[in-house]
Amino acid sequence: MIIEGIVTTIGPNQQVHIAPMGPIVDSEMRRLVLRPFRTAQTYRNLKVHPEGVFHITDDVSLLARAALGPVEPAPPIQPASAVRGFILSDACRYYEFGVRSIDDREERIRMDTEVVHSGRLRDFLGFNRAKHAVLEAAILATRTDFLPHEEINSEFRKLGVIVQKTGGEQEKTAFAFLQEYLARVVRLAREAHAGVRP
Amino acid sequence: MIIEGIVTTIGPNQQVHIAPMGPIVDSEMRRLVLRPFRTAQTYRNLKVHPEGVFHITDDVSLLARAALGPVEPAPPIQPASAVRGFILSDACRYYEFGVRSIDDREERIRMDTEVVHSGRLRDFLGFNRAKHAVLEAAILATRTDFLPHEEINSEFRKLGVIVQKTGGEQEKTAFAFLQEYLARVVRLAREAHAGVRP
Repeated sequence: MIIEGIVTTIGPNQQVHIAPMGPIVDSEMRRLVLRPFRTAQTYRNLKVHPEGVFHITDDVSLLARAALGPVEPAPPIQPASAVRGFILSDACRYYEFGVRSIDDREERIRMDTEVVHSGRLRDFLGFNRAKHAVLEAAILATRTDFLPHEEINSEFRKLGVIVQKTGGEQEKTAFAFLQEYLARVVRLAREAHAGVRP
Repeated sequence: MIIEGIVTTIGPNQQVHIAPMGPIVDSEMRRLVLRPFRTAQTYRNLKVHPEGVFHITDDVSLLARAALGPVEPAPPIQPASAVRGFILSDACRYYEFGVRSIDDREERIRMDTEVVHSGRLRDFLGFNRAKHAVLEAAILATRTDFLPHEEINSEFRKLGVIVQKTGGEQEKTAFAFLQEYLARVVRLAREAHAGVRP
């Protein structure tokens, strides 16, 4: 089963790096298989320092922002206890892990990790359709390079209805952030297309 | 904000009645606004005995089955502590409530309830796209009376891909159950349509 959450790793300047991640997990959350792309900062960080923290959170605002670039301002963090790494203080649960093996023969890396310490900070809200709609929208927003923009726009319209109908402020703000990002990408693509016309 | 969960009420024979429900909740989960349809057994039960229990759960198998009829075999239950009602023992969290007011002038009833006791039994798994796909499929499956079957089938195909890609056994079994239900409804509708031909 795949759980969508957030991984923190330590970057080249020892600062925290925050990235969304959908590891394959077992039912006891003892082993997490991370599958970052070769180009991902998380992969590069874990090659240098093979420890990090996986978080389960219902904060779709953070998930959406982390999917599209550095999160600024950075969310509250605290030091992990069993690894050298950082815990997101507002997460629901966290899993401190060590990388046990790396298979980087393919574009999509496979990192087998072992959870060495875990904890819970608060409850995960539960099934809110708006939160999931934001998550799906964030995934789409990371795929503007290879999915047709018309298709993404059409999905965004459907997801937006669910966000308005079932979401709170956090979901509406996060969705608006993704909409603005998408509009910017679409506009830049159109301008680039216009610019290369003979 | 709307959270999708499960409400238990006491039925005419004093047995537990289990139904999916998406109440409007406040951030502290102190008040839940239930909005059952006039035809819902939950509404009829709460008119007679105005107490029940709302549950947050990640068990999409139970959600899917409860959406489409009586759940058999019934899941494990235990008596509620502050109201006369039943707690689903496998739920993540529960909120025992009393109905404070009912507005039944519209087809969609509005019941304002107050949470008088709550508890947690286990963690909600987190964001799993397959679980949410099953939830969306279950909602679609309850709308076969008024949504075009072709549209539902088309959505099911997309949701099925997510279930296979990100789900575990529970999600795959629950989705197969919904697929079978949908196939049966579509077949019956075709047969009925063929039967009334001149």
